[in-house]
Amino acid sequence: MFLRARPLEFEALKPIVVLNKSDADDLGVKALDRVELLFNRLKINAIVNISQRMMPAGEIGLYGSVQEKLKANFGDNIKVLAADRPESLSYIRKRMSGRSLSSGELRKIIEDVVGQALSEIEITSFVISLYNHGMSSREAAALSMAMARTGKTLHFPGRRIFDKHSIGGVPGDKTSMLLVPTVAAAGLTIPKTSSRSITSPAGTADRVECLCPVTLSIPEIRRVVQKTNGCMAWGGAVDLAPADDIFIQIEYPLAIDPLLLPSVMSKKKAVSADFLVIDIPTGRAVKIKSIEEAQELGRSFVELGKKLGIRVDCVSSFGEQPIGYGIGPALEAREALTTALTGKGPRDLIEKVSHLASVLFDFNRNRNSKQKAMDIIRNGKMGKKFLEIIEAQGGNPRIKPEDLPVGDKVVKIKSNRNGKVFWFNNASIARIAREAGAPKDKGAGILLHKKLNDKVRKGETLFEIYAEKNYKLDRALELSKELNIIGIGKDYEMVLAEIPEEEEHRKYFILER
Amino acid sequence: MFLRARPLEFEALKPIVVLNKSDADDLGVKALDRVELLFNRLKINAIVNISQRMMPAGEIGLYGSVQEKLKANFGDNIKVLAADRPESLSYIRKRMSGRSLSSGELRKIIEDVVGQALSEIEITSFVISLYNHGMSSREAAALSMAMARTGKTLHFPGRRIFDKHSIGGVPGDKTSMLLVPTVAAAGLTIPKTSSRSITSPAGTADRVECLCPVTLSIPEIRRVVQKTNGCMAWGGAVDLAPADDIFIQIEYPLAIDPLLLPSVMSKKKAVSADFLVIDIPTGRAVKIKSIEEAQELGRSFVELGKKLGIRVDCVSSFGEQPIGYGIGPALEAREALTTALTGKGPRDLIEKVSHLASVLFDFNRNRNSKQKAMDIIRNGKMGKKFLEIIEAQGGNPRIKPEDLPVGDKVVKIKSNRNGKVFWFNNASIARIAREAGAPKDKGAGILLHKKLNDKVRKGETLFEIYAEKNYKLDRALELSKELNIIGIGKDYEMVLAEIPEEEEHRKYFILER
Repeated sequence: MFLRARPLEFEALKPIVVLNKSDADDLGVKALDRVELLFNRLKINAIVNISQRMMPAGEIGLYGSVQEKLKANFGDNIKVLAADRPESLSYIRKRMSGRSLSSGELRKIIEDVVGQALSEIEITSFVISLYNHGMSSREAAALSMAMARTGKTLHFPGRRIFDKHSIGGVPGDKTSMLLVPTVAAAGLTIPKTSSRSITSPAGTADRVECLCPVTLSIPEIRRVVQKTNGCMAWGGAVDLAPADDIFIQIEYPLAIDPLLLPSVMSKKKAVSADFLVIDIPTGRAVKIKSIEEAQELGRSFVELGKKLGIRVDCVSSFGEQPIGYGIGPALEAREALTTALTGKGPRDLIEKVSHLASVLFDFNRNRNSKQKAMDIIRNGKMGKKFLEIIEAQGGNPRIKPEDLPVGDKVVKIKSNRNGKVFWFNNASIARIAREAGAPKDKGAGILLHKKLNDKVRKGETLFEIYAEKNYKLDRALELSKELNIIGIGKDYEMVLAEIPEEEEHRKYFILER
Repeated sequence: MFLRARPLEFEALKPIVVLNKSDADDLGVKALDRVELLFNRLKINAIVNISQRMMPAGEIGLYGSVQEKLKANFGDNIKVLAADRPESLSYIRKRMSGRSLSSGELRKIIEDVVGQALSEIEITSFVISLYNHGMSSREAAALSMAMARTGKTLHFPGRRIFDKHSIGGVPGDKTSMLLVPTVAAAGLTIPKTSSRSITSPAGTADRVECLCPVTLSIPEIRRVVQKTNGCMAWGGAVDLAPADDIFIQIEYPLAIDPLLLPSVMSKKKAVSADFLVIDIPTGRAVKIKSIEEAQELGRSFVELGKKLGIRVDCVSSFGEQPIGYGIGPALEAREALTTALTGKGPRDLIEKVSHLASVLFDFNRNRNSKQKAMDIIRNGKMGKKFLEIIEAQGGNPRIKPEDLPVGDKVVKIKSNRNGKVFWFNNASIARIAREAGAPKDKGAGILLHKKLNDKVRKGETLFEIYAEKNYKLDRALELSKELNIIGIGKDYEMVLAEIPEEEEHRKYFILER
């Protein structure tokens, strides 16, 4: 059947065409069936949407991506044929019934996810089949490989590659920013790619961007790493394991994360990692609540790593309060820069950086790894490397912490009693910092004045909220009155606080990767 | 935040708005989050899509339904606020984790499905949670009630309502067309609503439409039923249990049917049925393969009926060949009309109609129910009632079978050997009839010349393919050469035929309801 092209003012991830009901009936296709389009010696497959009203009979509506691929203009005659559904759909159905899939079947699914041949309904079904029936380590390995191979990859011939990943959930965690220069200063290669925030006040890419560009191409990453042994680039700019980004769009509204393991490991495989340390923050207010859970997750990562040729070590770290004092891109970048330049900083931050570095040094069979890491941090080598990387990525190597602009709308939150700090609520801290504008407004966030076990006097400042815009400061302040983010009490006091009930569907931070 | 309206040339089931990434970040919302829109004293919630390219900052793209509800034109200032996700989403997540839901929670989900407050990803997740974890009869009852109550309903005060449903899958099944007048002629009330074909060559609504209008409003249905005791209306025109239509759109590409029971029973509840006979065609080529399966499904329907106040009786009927000889809307309508007018017709058709009618008569405590049904069919009362209903729905009561146009492109398929008919493949028959143009081309389809156990001589016609268009006849003929639809053999012959392998993902007929 020939239909006249009608380009639609519309952008979509999938190749969608819109047919009039009558033409669809003639072709024998229904909504979400597939058609083959032929025009100008080009041939593509598209997913059918059907309209009763908007599309006249004899015409075919082309979404942006379809029009671009076909190079068709208004009124062009497109040959349209009914097409079979992608083969991968039968594998998805097989997985839904609880049967496991071969590597080849999983690869076909991932290829069709990346190739935009599957609809949202179909991808959702796949994600949920993994959520429901779990995933064997063989399947996880096959998925990781398929996800890595359907995207760009980084190679550094002749170098052994070290890498780090955090399961996330702790606000203010600027560990990676200091770990990369510590490890690189020791002569190891660590081409770190990081994500931007999904639901947290800042991702590592957001933090580093206060100091230098993070949107690097693959040749730029290679150049920076060859020069400095390390980099701190935004992973989203280099299209590593793009299937993962599509899965995250499905998982986010459902707050499920069945692809956590392949998601993390596919990105590590894509950068050719040989050695990997994974930080698993553990505690009440993060995803992993207990050391037992952390151990179970950690063992799964180690096992998957073996199948992928990556040596993995996992660390369960204390996750019940923010790392350091600053929360929000610029406040965190300031704190990291100060720590790098002086070799001194918040004890928990220094401790976490040096421990994770020591795990990577152990892979390298270094002796006294922990001491070695502390030395590099304190003797200025880490700071020097930090500035080198900033410069190589296009930033100013003479930048000072006070050069980093932070929000000029500030409010202090004070204690209404004497006591000591008993607990923090990480999820509430993240929500308030985001309400203040983070991560979009880089200068917005929270600056803590107190941490766990610190003594507090009535009237003393507990924390400050920073914002760039008054209305956002107001919103954040209002929210901070609703949510308890910090608990002050006296020793032996048993009732810690009246904790307001949070609605279940606001807890989205589990997807931070 | 205020954004300028930009109506989009776009129709969608959901209330979707498109935001520029930067505005979305300022609002703190992501793709598939919700916003509240205020304009002109109107307030509606919408689902967020995000565009980097197509939507300029400061503007908000409105899909058709949003624009209509808000009555906003290009450039109008819309107040936009971040909104919570619908409460029902947390119930969907609860169900995904395997926990069962209360009636109130299920009702909220159905309300939000019908109210278009949930995205495709979210509805898919709900459907699959039912597929994976099954459904208790309590949940099935709650869903049925919620699905019935969120749509239109039919009431006939003072009348006891009789109804029939078929699980489907048998081509040429024109039973309902003759059952309704048989039952109505006995003085019982049977306001039958039927679906159009989804994947079969004809639904009952498609067949009846060859004789009279089927798109009736609720007052029209009431008038027809008050006059004749029965009707044969298209259910899709009266918005009974609209949630079901939305679920079917999700289930169709996945070829799953977890909502079968609530789907059927919600529509019956919506027409206030008191007594219901359910036909479960059973055999190799239909959904239910064995009598044991049919019994299990039947028991579920009976149990669910008890909870809903509907008395249900299920019949497992022979499903291994088409009913009668005609397949396709007009060919089937001709056969039904001939049978109605003469009281004579294919034995399997007469047998099926009279048996299902006798089940309804039994509910009414009639004696000799089967004989009574046969009498009504044979003594002309059924035919008279058939024409009465046709006339009441706006058709011509003097219509003759030969007045019904069938396709004038016809090809005969002949036997290449002597023997007898051993088997039919219903799924292949449906595919060929659809390829010939059914149900869209009402005159297209297949006319069988032989049925099971009939003797066949080499060169005799096995069946004819009818089409209205030459290219469709060609396509159907080509497909009929690929697919074996009829097996001819000799007694004691063990190899029936070489059956070509069908691709798994073409078997979609299970959703026919």
